[in-house]
Amino acid sequence: MTDIFEVPTPDKDLLDKAERLRIASIKTSQTNNIDRIRALNLMADSLEKNSQEIIEANIEDYKKAKNKGISKALLSRLKLSKQKLSSGIEGVRQVGNLADPVGKIQIKKELSEGLNLERKTVPIGVIGVIFESRPDAVMQISSLAIRSGNGVMLKGGSEANLTNLAIVSALKNGLQNSNLDENAICLLTSRKDSMAMLKLEKFVNLIIPRGSNELVKFIQENTEIPVLGHADGICHLYIDNEVSLDVALKVALDSKIQYPAACNAVETLLIHKDIAADFLKKAIPSFNSNDVKLIGDRKSVQMGVAFEANYEDWKTEYLDLMLSVKIVDNLEEAIDHIQKFSSKHTDGIITKNISNANKFMNEIDSAGVFHNCSTRFADGFRYGFGAEVGISTQTLPPRGPVGLEGLVTYKYFLRGEGHIVDDFSSGKSIFTHKDV
Amino acid sequence: MTDIFEVPTPDKDLLDKAERLRIASIKTSQTNNIDRIRALNLMADSLEKNSQEIIEANIEDYKKAKNKGISKALLSRLKLSKQKLSSGIEGVRQVGNLADPVGKIQIKKELSEGLNLERKTVPIGVIGVIFESRPDAVMQISSLAIRSGNGVMLKGGSEANLTNLAIVSALKNGLQNSNLDENAICLLTSRKDSMAMLKLEKFVNLIIPRGSNELVKFIQENTEIPVLGHADGICHLYIDNEVSLDVALKVALDSKIQYPAACNAVETLLIHKDIAADFLKKAIPSFNSNDVKLIGDRKSVQMGVAFEANYEDWKTEYLDLMLSVKIVDNLEEAIDHIQKFSSKHTDGIITKNISNANKFMNEIDSAGVFHNCSTRFADGFRYGFGAEVGISTQTLPPRGPVGLEGLVTYKYFLRGEGHIVDDFSSGKSIFTHKDV
Repeated sequence: MTDIFEVPTPDKDLLDKAERLRIASIKTSQTNNIDRIRALNLMADSLEKNSQEIIEANIEDYKKAKNKGISKALLSRLKLSKQKLSSGIEGVRQVGNLADPVGKIQIKKELSEGLNLERKTVPIGVIGVIFESRPDAVMQISSLAIRSGNGVMLKGGSEANLTNLAIVSALKNGLQNSNLDENAICLLTSRKDSMAMLKLEKFVNLIIPRGSNELVKFIQENTEIPVLGHADGICHLYIDNEVSLDVALKVALDSKIQYPAACNAVETLLIHKDIAADFLKKAIPSFNSNDVKLIGDRKSVQMGVAFEANYEDWKTEYLDLMLSVKIVDNLEEAIDHIQKFSSKHTDGIITKNISNANKFMNEIDSAGVFHNCSTRFADGFRYGFGAEVGISTQTLPPRGPVGLEGLVTYKYFLRGEGHIVDDFSSGKSIFTHKDV
Repeated sequence: MTDIFEVPTPDKDLLDKAERLRIASIKTSQTNNIDRIRALNLMADSLEKNSQEIIEANIEDYKKAKNKGISKALLSRLKLSKQKLSSGIEGVRQVGNLADPVGKIQIKKELSEGLNLERKTVPIGVIGVIFESRPDAVMQISSLAIRSGNGVMLKGGSEANLTNLAIVSALKNGLQNSNLDENAICLLTSRKDSMAMLKLEKFVNLIIPRGSNELVKFIQENTEIPVLGHADGICHLYIDNEVSLDVALKVALDSKIQYPAACNAVETLLIHKDIAADFLKKAIPSFNSNDVKLIGDRKSVQMGVAFEANYEDWKTEYLDLMLSVKIVDNLEEAIDHIQKFSSKHTDGIITKNISNANKFMNEIDSAGVFHNCSTRFADGFRYGFGAEVGISTQTLPPRGPVGLEGLVTYKYFLRGEGHIVDDFSSGKSIFTHKDV
């Protein structure tokens, strides 16, 4: 993957593509809800019609990748079965069912007689998405972009090139059949273009990277374009002294093993000293039987944790069946530890004590603060957004799991009848500032 | 000003200050609305009590600055008269009257039985503000930060150091008299510290620069901390062919001359060719008598504009009594020009043709799109926000004039009863996703 970590200057061909995309995105931003839903259905129809070609292209990609000897995990993500394709197509139609995020009036007021202000949501423009192998992501991302009136520039993993091309060709056909400009979806396939996107700040308004932490960090540091994403997911779970040990263990296990490679899986367990021995007596065999390697501070090692942690462990996102464990004296020490090491993704507390829970949730400055539930709930679909365009760990909005809301911005529309500011300075006119 | 354009590494003293501020900001974020309003009133009381000291400190600063030979404009901004101080103090009390931006529930829903999600606004944390001479800004910024539950790190111009110290000392006294931690306001005075703030990404969550474009650009390029601000305000006004020439001229004049140094003043006038000759016949004498230098394209020069523009003019924010003028063939050409040169601050159209107005307002991707009114209305107070913490020209929110809303973010609170994701994967539990 290191060979993509260069930022070449965009060449003429890429600039032309970007300009066509920009123009198409302006047209897309002017379409109405019905047009966009219709386009999504036509995109889905076209994918269905071209299913055979898409599957064949994927078989070709798969063969090549296998010959190249890429990892099993990557191969399994590359593979697009008939079922996966069908559910992807169904996903495109479902995106049409999501509420229209465009044109929502957020503020509407009369500033003065005849002078009216409106703040309305509008598409962001062009969304750049850089993702790894999974070709089903192309369908999902493209449909979310069109749903929200944006254009999209896609760059997938090169091992899925043929599949991605076949999918995008079908999607463009669908757009052609609707009133929308097919150039609103643009797929980059050459290695050279892949990172040059980072220099397209005149054309691309937001980049959403979907890949390794390494990739996300590189992108954040090498572009002036805003990036929606998170580099790390170092989530904590603190087990207070007033708990049911069974509940605590159940939630801790789920937070770690339900899907350890996810960013919302827990990496560090903090345990109140008063219940630590009892908890670990139950927990160690349980984690062991689930192949979770526990790495603890000295106190927890004295209580049976097998491996001793070093300072680096508190800063590590294992993304694996590994969990660091620390015994703390009290809630305050747990909060201090989290404030120091959390990546501000999601941190949870298990306690029966409501005031402890509130203190924890108020003082921890993470996008998600959870009480008595698994950190794995931090997800756009589980939050009921119907879609997730990314998860952000920055402090400013949008943060946490971001749904379609993350693909729109807003604009102020001010309409007058020849109003000038000087009349207000002189006292000839006055502001009414009435909500309407 | 060039000597501040270095970024030194924060020293121990600054790091200690920042840590105290961070802790105080966490305490401030936990205060309720009544506490914060009370604190603002006590801050105002304390300023009143210490008025004499503040005025004397300002006289001292003024003397020193005058001896140093700083510019008249800077001297006038530095001067803090009794009246200016009083209105500043009144401003602090008024900030207490603004609606509380903290704790607003944006989303509240049941994800499943007993599993409840809430998205609530919370303070951002520590706001860093770097501003130039005006000492009254200290009162305004500090009160907005406290109103919204944040801590604030201030760096003013060094020529106002004594005044700023006297004001901050009074403000801290006010905080001490309330339940709030006086360390929530932190003033930096040494030249060394001024730019080191840019490296305090562990302590400062948002930087708001208030100063020259040069300063803003430098800050944006030299910090990992998010920056709320705009570097340029290149605003356009397009005069369509269906207009009352009188209205067009009145709005154009106001947009330029009402306060030419403001970012929302117009820099380029685009005029439809069909009415250009008639308009300029009226406009040229009018601009001349208001000392506005017109710099136009060849066509407009042929119609009497005195100076010919070069390519750079279209990209220049004059911030002065200068205005570039271009004759365009139609609305489309105006839109193209704006899309190429606008800094996305505010762009307006004068027309009686509603469909032209709508096309303009929909296609121009600026924070403010105005119809038949002066660009000078683009301002937080005129929009009725009661305060303005900055104006942003970025595409993503917050954009345009930003009120107190820009000093809060949000957090997801999820409360369960031992809920785990595995139960939903296995089908044992189901999501309800009910708004409550």
